[in-house]
Amino acid sequence: MVKVAVVEGDGIGHEVIPVARDILAAVRPDFEFFDVEVGYGLWERTGCACGEETMAELRSADAILFGAITTPPDPDYRSVVLQIRHDLDLYANVRPIQGGDVDIVIVRENTEGLYSGIEWTEPDRACTARVVTRRGSERVARYACTLAKSRRHLTVGNKANVLKSDCLFVEVCMAEAARANVPCTARYIDALCLDVLMHPDRYDVIVTTNIFGDILSDAAAYLVGGLGMLPSANIGERHALFEPVHGSAPDIAGQNIANPIAAIRSAAMLLRHVGDPAAAAAVEEAVRRVVDAGIRTPDLGGTAGTREFGAAVLREV
Amino acid sequence: MVKVAVVEGDGIGHEVIPVARDILAAVRPDFEFFDVEVGYGLWERTGCACGEETMAELRSADAILFGAITTPPDPDYRSVVLQIRHDLDLYANVRPIQGGDVDIVIVRENTEGLYSGIEWTEPDRACTARVVTRRGSERVARYACTLAKSRRHLTVGNKANVLKSDCLFVEVCMAEAARANVPCTARYIDALCLDVLMHPDRYDVIVTTNIFGDILSDAAAYLVGGLGMLPSANIGERHALFEPVHGSAPDIAGQNIANPIAAIRSAAMLLRHVGDPAAAAAVEEAVRRVVDAGIRTPDLGGTAGTREFGAAVLREV
Ligand SMILES: CC(C)[C@H](C(=O)O)[C@@H](O)C(=O)O
Ligand SMILES: CC(C)[C@H](C(=O)O)[C@@H](O)C(=O)O
Repeated sequence: MVKVAVVEGDGIGHEVIPVARDILAAVRPDFEFFDVEVGYGLWERTGCACGEETMAELRSADAILFGAITTPPDPDYRSVVLQIRHDLDLYANVRPIQGGDVDIVIVRENTEGLYSGIEWTEPDRACTARVVTRRGSERVARYACTLAKSRRHLTVGNKANVLKSDCLFVEVCMAEAARANVPCTARYIDALCLDVLMHPDRYDVIVTTNIFGDILSDAAAYLVGGLGMLPSANIGERHALFEPVHGSAPDIAGQNIANPIAAIRSAAMLLRHVGDPAAAAAVEEAVRRVVDAGIRTPDLGGTAGTREFGAAVLREV
Repeated sequence: MVKVAVVEGDGIGHEVIPVARDILAAVRPDFEFFDVEVGYGLWERTGCACGEETMAELRSADAILFGAITTPPDPDYRSVVLQIRHDLDLYANVRPIQGGDVDIVIVRENTEGLYSGIEWTEPDRACTARVVTRRGSERVARYACTLAKSRRHLTVGNKANVLKSDCLFVEVCMAEAARANVPCTARYIDALCLDVLMHPDRYDVIVTTNIFGDILSDAAAYLVGGLGMLPSANIGERHALFEPVHGSAPDIAGQNIANPIAAIRSAAMLLRHVGDPAAAAAVEEAVRRVVDAGIRTPDLGGTAGTREFGAAVLREV
C-alpha cells in the first residue's frame, strides 16, 4: 500500500494539487492519501510554517505530492521547501525539460553546495560556504548515471576552472559515469547555459551542483515556454517529494484559471517513482490528448478552468 | 597622452587584437601602444603565464586591450584573466548585450563572491567561501547606478532568499540606487535568467555578484546569437581592461577567419572609458556600416577574412 502525503501549500497549490490528487486516485485506487498543512497560511496563524510534528507526518509517507509555498516578505521566514529538502535528505532534484523537440533532464544536487546553510556575517562582510562532499556528489552522480543509462549520455555542469569545490564534483561524476559505462562530458556552467539554449539537441541528462542547477533549469525552461508546465521530483534514499516547478502565484489564486499540467506531470513522476511506469505514461498521454483536443487553460490560450481541465484528463485516463 | 597596453594572448587573440589596435590608432593617432606578452604560450616557454614584471607593465598603462587566453588542461595553471582582474582590482565587469531590439548592460562584480580564492579541501570535502563585502558591493553598485542614471533603470540579480551574503548585496545596491535616484528592482537570479530571455525589453542595467553575472551574461548572449560579437570592459579605480567575451578559439586560430567585431567593440568601450565617446560611436557606427554593406566573416555567412573586415572598418572611420 502506498501512502501519499498531500501538501497543497499556498495560493494555486489549493487548486492544482486536488486535481493531480484526483487523477492519482483514479489510476491507483489503492493509494492512501492524507493531507498535511504546511506554508505561509499556517505560519501566519501559528508562527511556524512546518514544525517537527509536520515533518513526522511527511516522513511517514511513501511519497509526497507538494503544491507551492508563498515566500512572505519577512526575513524571519525560512524557506519551507529548503527545510523539507534538507530534513528529508532529498538529494536529487530532477527537472525534466520536455516539449517539442527538447528532451533534457536536469539533475540538481539538492542538499549542499551554496545551500549548506553555513554562513557567517560581520557588519561589513557576509559569507556563505559552498560545500561539496564526496558522498553528496556520489549519490547524485549515481542517480544521474542510472537515468542516463536508459537514455543517452551525461553532461556535468561545473565551474572547476574557478572552484576547487567543483574539481571534486567533476572527478566524482566522471568516475561514476565510467563505472556505469555512461558517456560523460564536463562543461563549464556559463558556457553550458548558453549551449543548452543554442543546441538543446546536444544535451540529454545534465547533473550539476545545487545553485547551478537552480539557475540552469530556469534558463532551460525558456526552451519550452517557461516554468508553467514543468514538473519536478525531489528524491532521497527514503523519501520523495513531487512538485510543480512554478510557484504559488497569488495573483491568479482562487480564480480556477491556474494550469494544473505541471502538478499532474509531477503526479506522473510520483507514479514512476513508486514503480508504476504504465500508469505514469497513461497520465502523461491523457494530458497530451486533452491539450490536443483543444481543452486548455487561459495561459495556453484556452477557456477551460483548472477543474474542467482536470475533469477532462480524468475522463481520458 | 594615453598609454595602451596590448595583450594579444593566445589563439585568435593574435588576429583580432591587431585589427582592433589599428582601428584605435587610426582614430587616435596620439595613443601610445606597447605589447605585453601574457598567456599559455609564455607559460609553456617560461613556466609563468603572467609574472610580477608583466603585472608592472600592465599597471603602467592607462588602458589594456586584451585578447583571449587558452586555458590548458593543466591543474597547476591558474587563470591569468582571474589573476589580472584580482591584482589590478578591476571590480566591475561590464558586458553590454546589444543587437536587434535588445539593449541590456550586465554589470558583474568582478573581484569577490565565489571568486574569493578562499578554499579549503579535505579528502572527502571541498569548500569555497562566497564572500560579499560592503565595500565591494558599494563600488560595483555605484558604477551600475552611474550607468543606469543615463539610461533607464537597474535590476539587482541575487539569491537573497537562500544566501545571507546576498542580503548584504541587495541592501547595498538598493541604498545606492535610492541615493542616485535610479529606479531599482531586486530579482532572484534563477527567475531573472529566464525573464531576461522571455522579456529582454524589461531589462536595462543589471548588477549582480561575480558568478551569477558570469552565468547570466552567457545566457543573455543567446538573445544576440551567442558570445561571438560581445565586447566587455573590466573597470577598476586605477586600471581598466577591455576584452572580447569570446575565447581564444584554437580550432580556428591562424586561418584569418575569426570575427574581429567583439575585439573592435571592446576597443570602442576603451575609447569611451578614456573620455572619447565621439570616437567610440564612430567606431561602432563604422562596424555597423561595414556589416550592412555585406562585408562579413564566415561565422556571419560572409567570405571576408579577419584582416579584410578590419581594413573595411578602417576605411569607414
Ligand atoms: C524558492 C527557492 C528557495 C528554490 C530554490 O532556490 O531551490 C526555487 O528557486 C526552486 O528552484 O525550487
Ligand atoms: C575563464 C573564466 C575564468 C572566466 C570567468 O569565470 O569569469 C570567463 O568565464 C569569463 O566570463 O570571463
